[in-house]
Amino acid sequence: MTTKITVNDHLAQAQASFDEASNPRLVEILRSALKHLYAFVEETKLSREEWMAGIEFLTATGKKCDDVRQEFILLSDTLGVSMLVEMINQMPSDAATDPTVFGPFYVPGAPHFAMGSSIARKGNDGELLVFSGTVRGANGELLEHAQLDVWQVAPNGFYDVQDPASPPMSYRGVFETGPDGYFEILTTRPVDYQIPTDGPVGQLLRASGRHAWRPAHTHFMVSCPGYKTLITHAFDADSPNLDRDAVFGVRESLIIDMNGGTATFDLVLDAED
Amino acid sequence: MTTKITVNDHLAQAQASFDEASNPRLVEILRSALKHLYAFVEETKLSREEWMAGIEFLTATGKKCDDVRQEFILLSDTLGVSMLVEMINQMPSDAATDPTVFGPFYVPGAPHFAMGSSIARKGNDGELLVFSGTVRGANGELLEHAQLDVWQVAPNGFYDVQDPASPPMSYRGVFETGPDGYFEILTTRPVDYQIPTDGPVGQLLRASGRHAWRPAHTHFMVSCPGYKTLITHAFDADSPNLDRDAVFGVRESLIIDMNGGTATFDLVLDAED
Repeated sequence: MTTKITVNDHLAQAQASFDEASNPRLVEILRSALKHLYAFVEETKLSREEWMAGIEFLTATGKKCDDVRQEFILLSDTLGVSMLVEMINQMPSDAATDPTVFGPFYVPGAPHFAMGSSIARKGNDGELLVFSGTVRGANGELLEHAQLDVWQVAPNGFYDVQDPASPPMSYRGVFETGPDGYFEILTTRPVDYQIPTDGPVGQLLRASGRHAWRPAHTHFMVSCPGYKTLITHAFDADSPNLDRDAVFGVRESLIIDMNGGTATFDLVLDAED
Repeated sequence: MTTKITVNDHLAQAQASFDEASNPRLVEILRSALKHLYAFVEETKLSREEWMAGIEFLTATGKKCDDVRQEFILLSDTLGVSMLVEMINQMPSDAATDPTVFGPFYVPGAPHFAMGSSIARKGNDGELLVFSGTVRGANGELLEHAQLDVWQVAPNGFYDVQDPASPPMSYRGVFETGPDGYFEILTTRPVDYQIPTDGPVGQLLRASGRHAWRPAHTHFMVSCPGYKTLITHAFDADSPNLDRDAVFGVRESLIIDMNGGTATFDLVLDAED
């Protein structure tokens, strides 16, 4: 009595359902998603119970999201997908600074500060650190008016948005380079911290034998008219977690010495195409 | 300044993060998921904005779920993934009845009825229909005490759980075959209906040029000791949506004549391995 329909027939039927769509890019994405999703289900011979566990995991992940918690970004981060998206989107030249993950803790609209100002908050007992360096183009030209949007954890291991005791916009600031391409930012030395583990992503990490540590880093988003925006981190060379970042964001070129109260982080942007 | 890390290096690093896991099946599933997810991102060269749109879509899908609404199952259904899982899990022999999707509207614990009883509710103006047939094993043996768990839409196009005006467990019932393998179920003729479109899945269907119709059908889950449980539908041969089911569940062998108040649906179960 069976009607022989193969997985490929079934895939073709599902892909054809988008024939009437008016947005060709959406169709391209959906057809590719179907192809790879089907290949995953077929390769693993996913059981009904496993499929249901997946449905429940995704549901719980969505329900954990709120204004300041984005559990799906955390999932994407811990699977290395966020880093992959940056690798594909930023594609630096050999001369340019390596990009890394954006992360879920960026907040737009951070205050603008004059060169050398502090983004640290009083009452924190972290080790003071001055970041300085230059922003250049890939041909070596120094870039004036480059904007550096900088954010990091407080010395207690939490971002402001995670910490009800923190004033908003703590450890966040926007700086601008001078005519010599130079910048200077006062902060406290970033610390290793664990990504939030009280949700479904934390459960997945535990169930799959993983930890949640990120090596100490400060986030930089650097933009300048005529140049591609760079999203990256400066990593502390002393972190014990450099070779096991929970989100796979470490690049050797981004590891710098943060001892002695100063750290030099020179940045190179590619010109726009 | 760049540290050359290819997508394959990055994938290998992410897959290796599960090396300490104690559950080998979970690791197998996660590694396969990563491989196919990365292939999707690479093939589509997913932009940051598209990635973020995906994050927001998944988040909204999770938030739409509640006790009686499972938007992720609806997503899985409309992408054909649920049907694929059934194809992989049920794998009928040539003699056995084709399986199809389980769907999001099953409710366990439906009332047990004597042969020929009605699962229809008074006050509904649907066309009365008697389903009858036999349940056999793949070698032709008639199966006594096979259980048929049956559910379908009311004549208004809604399942009981979707309709606040409906008493619970309407159009649901469990029947048992007699010594001759025979069953008889009184109901109303199922109608074509739209899957719920007031959530993110509905938005996706509209954005991708698709409709939300399912051809009229009655769900059967048939079990008998010593045999594989069969999950299937009986489809109405008069439905105008048979060749464009929103969840890709139609199989020719499952299409039956429902005119004249009677419908014959003979079922064949494979023996357990």
